[in-house]
Amino acid sequence: MARTVRFYKTGGPEVLTIDDIPEVYPESNEVRIRVKAIGLNRAEIMLREGIYHENPVFPSRLGYEASGVIDAVGADVKLYKKGDIVSTIPSFSISQTKQGVYGESAVVPSEVVTKYPTCLSPIQGASIWMQYLTAYGALISYGRLKPGQFIIITAASSSVGIAAIQIAKLIGAEVIAVTRNRSKRTSLYELGANFVIVTDDQNLEDEVTKITNERGADLAFDPIAGPILTSICNVMKNHGKIYEYGALYYGSTNYPLMPMLARSLSIIGYQVLDFVLDQERLIGAKKFINHSIESGKLTPVIDNVFSLDEIKEAHYYMESNKQLGKIVVTV
Amino acid sequence: MARTVRFYKTGGPEVLTIDDIPEVYPESNEVRIRVKAIGLNRAEIMLREGIYHENPVFPSRLGYEASGVIDAVGADVKLYKKGDIVSTIPSFSISQTKQGVYGESAVVPSEVVTKYPTCLSPIQGASIWMQYLTAYGALISYGRLKPGQFIIITAASSSVGIAAIQIAKLIGAEVIAVTRNRSKRTSLYELGANFVIVTDDQNLEDEVTKITNERGADLAFDPIAGPILTSICNVMKNHGKIYEYGALYYGSTNYPLMPMLARSLSIIGYQVLDFVLDQERLIGAKKFINHSIESGKLTPVIDNVFSLDEIKEAHYYMESNKQLGKIVVTV
Repeated sequence: MARTVRFYKTGGPEVLTIDDIPEVYPESNEVRIRVKAIGLNRAEIMLREGIYHENPVFPSRLGYEASGVIDAVGADVKLYKKGDIVSTIPSFSISQTKQGVYGESAVVPSEVVTKYPTCLSPIQGASIWMQYLTAYGALISYGRLKPGQFIIITAASSSVGIAAIQIAKLIGAEVIAVTRNRSKRTSLYELGANFVIVTDDQNLEDEVTKITNERGADLAFDPIAGPILTSICNVMKNHGKIYEYGALYYGSTNYPLMPMLARSLSIIGYQVLDFVLDQERLIGAKKFINHSIESGKLTPVIDNVFSLDEIKEAHYYMESNKQLGKIVVTV
Repeated sequence: MARTVRFYKTGGPEVLTIDDIPEVYPESNEVRIRVKAIGLNRAEIMLREGIYHENPVFPSRLGYEASGVIDAVGADVKLYKKGDIVSTIPSFSISQTKQGVYGESAVVPSEVVTKYPTCLSPIQGASIWMQYLTAYGALISYGRLKPGQFIIITAASSSVGIAAIQIAKLIGAEVIAVTRNRSKRTSLYELGANFVIVTDDQNLEDEVTKITNERGADLAFDPIAGPILTSICNVMKNHGKIYEYGALYYGSTNYPLMPMLARSLSIIGYQVLDFVLDQERLIGAKKFINHSIESGKLTPVIDNVFSLDEIKEAHYYMESNKQLGKIVVTV
């Protein structure tokens, strides 16, 4: 039997329950993981609320990121064996994993697991792929961010935001971190941001104009949309690229046609689940991330650790937006 | 003296006057053209109305495209001499040409003139660069349109729309021409469109879904924005690219975040005046266009020819949206 997080209807964190259900044996090309740690992601809030692009099938599991030890392999699995220490890459549909990895045991397609750098703890191992692949795909693989270029990173204190700050710094870009909350200013500087804009206190357009000496930013990486997208477009330089990777703003978003035309800007819809489908890009990304972690140049920032019993509290906490970095649940 | 179209205040076609003013001698690196024909463009309506990105300086001239014979060259002009038959590439700010080429004589920077294929008449020579460079830049140079791909071309009966149909057909793409007006349907098929959607009678999304067998379009080329941009985004395939090159819709435009994220779409602001600044791309474009015209694969479509005396009528006609192809004024 395996304690497993499930929900029977959409709603707030209170719909999550822990059920004791029989362990599943992996089918062909699947592996089963004895889960040690689970990395939480906003996608799971959306699935739980019923606003994700995939629909839950009740009783539904949830979760993209887990680290642990393989304890069973299906037929035709050649790359992994029992005892391998792995974590999951968010490159599957929820239904492919029988609705997710939150629980003591998770069965996933073998192609979505990977060995993570041995210098990491299981908690850290569950905190790397979503954030670093999301940031690497947009900034480096597609965006080709270069040393000295200015990049605007909004929602900078999220795990993906911090990963983007770290990767941008690593390649020598000038990082403009944007956050609503002034309490996060100091930490964002400590994490490597060259500039921090607190939108509760400061005007984003004025600040970027000053920071870039009226030149504008080269790249932007934004999961919010809404009015901030227009502000960003107003301070991008010619041929600037804006990667939109979320919909945190609940209202509608204006397309700012005039700056788009005047400065030949691109707005590019981006999601990591699409990025990882490109095998060649994924291989490059994994290589960069593994190498950077092993050489000590990238370290995942863990904000808080909960136990599996505290899964509701962990989700309430994620929704509070108080975190700075990754929220992890240990099993 | 040279008869020259000018205006003394912004407004409708009625503000245009023909003044007899002294000919100007070209300064260093400038050439003077004895104008034979003028190609009309929507940018001139916008300048005349005072809604262009450059402001008129009164009394203001106007015009981007002219063909004619060089009758004087300034100091340091090496590539051209008196008697050369040339036309102008819209690669200059209006103020650089002392506000435009509408008139018997025009002085322009030497780097914006070019010899056009000798098989063309002066009327045709004034009808190639704006339309073919605009279409080539977005479709081929940036958009990398490939044989068999589906491209949506809105405002298809404009000179740029027709140029896009011709170039897309030439490289073997499947052309979906979109027009409001059912009277243009037959002509658009004759010009090479594989499919024509008349938005007064048909639903764009339904039709593109049918035409592409639910696959969606690869590329879109749209000068309108507004609600049609959302419709286009709803029928683009994964990683589809939408080139926005105008603002014909007067209201605000929504950014359709959900299809953008779900299918990793890009919306790219594009204008030919920016494209031609990239010398390498411009050289490739001119080569393609010259070669295609000389080999009979591209022929500019002339809708109507007016005399210089009829400049107001020509502008009224351009605003009527009855044309199919280029409107030219002969001098």
